[in-house]
Amino acid sequence: MNANIDALTRSVLEQMGRTPAPRLRQIMQSAVRHLHAFAEEVELTPEEWLAGIAFFTATGQMCSADRQEFILLSDTLGLSSLVNLLHDCGGLEQATESSVLGPFYRETAPRLAAGDSIARIAQGGTAVQYYGRVTDVQGRPLPGAQVQIWQTDADGWYDIQLHDQELVDMRGNFTCDENGWYLARSVLPKSYPLPADGPVRRMLDAQERHGYRPAHIHFLISAEGHKELVTALYLEGDPYLESDTVFGVTSAELVVAPKQDEAAPIRELPAIRYDFRLARGSAESGRVGADVSKINLG
Amino acid sequence: MNANIDALTRSVLEQMGRTPAPRLRQIMQSAVRHLHAFAEEVELTPEEWLAGIAFFTATGQMCSADRQEFILLSDTLGLSSLVNLLHDCGGLEQATESSVLGPFYRETAPRLAAGDSIARIAQGGTAVQYYGRVTDVQGRPLPGAQVQIWQTDADGWYDIQLHDQELVDMRGNFTCDENGWYLARSVLPKSYPLPADGPVRRMLDAQERHGYRPAHIHFLISAEGHKELVTALYLEGDPYLESDTVFGVTSAELVVAPKQDEAAPIRELPAIRYDFRLARGSAESGRVGADVSKINLG
Repeated sequence: MNANIDALTRSVLEQMGRTPAPRLRQIMQSAVRHLHAFAEEVELTPEEWLAGIAFFTATGQMCSADRQEFILLSDTLGLSSLVNLLHDCGGLEQATESSVLGPFYRETAPRLAAGDSIARIAQGGTAVQYYGRVTDVQGRPLPGAQVQIWQTDADGWYDIQLHDQELVDMRGNFTCDENGWYLARSVLPKSYPLPADGPVRRMLDAQERHGYRPAHIHFLISAEGHKELVTALYLEGDPYLESDTVFGVTSAELVVAPKQDEAAPIRELPAIRYDFRLARGSAESGRVGADVSKINLG
Repeated sequence: MNANIDALTRSVLEQMGRTPAPRLRQIMQSAVRHLHAFAEEVELTPEEWLAGIAFFTATGQMCSADRQEFILLSDTLGLSSLVNLLHDCGGLEQATESSVLGPFYRETAPRLAAGDSIARIAQGGTAVQYYGRVTDVQGRPLPGAQVQIWQTDADGWYDIQLHDQELVDMRGNFTCDENGWYLARSVLPKSYPLPADGPVRRMLDAQERHGYRPAHIHFLISAEGHKELVTALYLEGDPYLESDTVFGVTSAELVVAPKQDEAAPIRELPAIRYDFRLARGSAESGRVGADVSKINLG
């Protein structure tokens, strides 16, 4: 019977082998080899694979203009982080580490002035300032670099979980000054569980995973002639730092703590200072994830 | 950077490792190992994986009560056939080979009497009779075995591609007589291309695959105390026999040709005689696929 299976895999690879685009051919042949090896290794049964098909179907049907369940699945399987790490390879050791974009990124973040707060509607929480410099890998400032920041409110909710699509909160676009400095006000974010109503959550429950992400602040930073940087800063002491459900904390370098900082622009607020280093390169997107309202929904 | 990737994969496997159900734990750990190995092997980029996510999303959104695009994807990647072959393993060498159930199976096939035609609405085509015996692996007849038959009409269309959900044609359930004989009338099926309007078809086009299935007749056969048999008979001489888009023709044993047959019950019609051998076992479903209207759509 193994001879039959080998013959089957060979004929699938042969059909894939006629693909004219070399990259698509390479990806599909590798995918088929690993997919078949997986099914053979675990001796996947028809009932189990049918349950898998029902799971993928439900995942696709959960997707909408403000929910991307397949990105959530990719995140919770560590694949998003893996692809980001692969992207970071290639002599960029001096650039800031990346982290997952996550499913809550939106292109609609408002343009704010230096020192503005991104908490425009949300109430409560511990006020804080984020500041620092955006530089190249040699530490030379990048004037005019764009810094987009987004995060949960102090209760662990993103705007789109609380409000209509139109309402935007806890997000902002800042422009670095002539010396590469950025400054934003906010409140400290909170750790939060992944959405409780979809197939991915059902998977996490079956695996007895807690489903939490540690508290973090997202950054998407771009500057002409440099590679876009997608990363996040994680709050020291968070109980989920070591067991992030989406495996975003790939480097201790991204863990920070707010503190009193005499050098900070706003004296009365605790500060998180972080300097970001961008690698030289094209501005091509370096992230798994997207504004989900922009993803083709079939 | 490879050290980071290895550490990431380890921490994903560790989170999976706490799954209490041993089988789910085994499947998910193997899936993660192969998924990560695939991404690393091809150095999957964020843009490519985002395109993959858009493809899976579109595939899920294409699914409806009469369309199961993920089964179609599984079929066209050879995974359905592979899982069926794995299912056939285990000392069942004497049973008839299985073949893919395909996305057009319906539970609503009508009960017909021996010798009835399943072509109740479809017009035209070459009339034919299917007959033979259903036996166990020792060749002992199985009286009362249930034989469900479904196929395209003479133009290569299934009923649900032409009509409303309620209208059923080219399908029938037959009961074997006291000596295990079944008999049905029909018209010869035709090779046909997979649906032209979904993401799977776009994948086939990008791979320059013709997208055709060779002409075939589906059989789903069950008898008490025996393993359900899902198979199909393929017409000799069909141009797509060697390049079936869903890799269903896993054995030459399933290729047949209609002929004049003096022993056939209906003298004036060409006949396809096929004797099916069922393995002993529970009646558990041995097939990837299902009546798609029964699949959880999230």
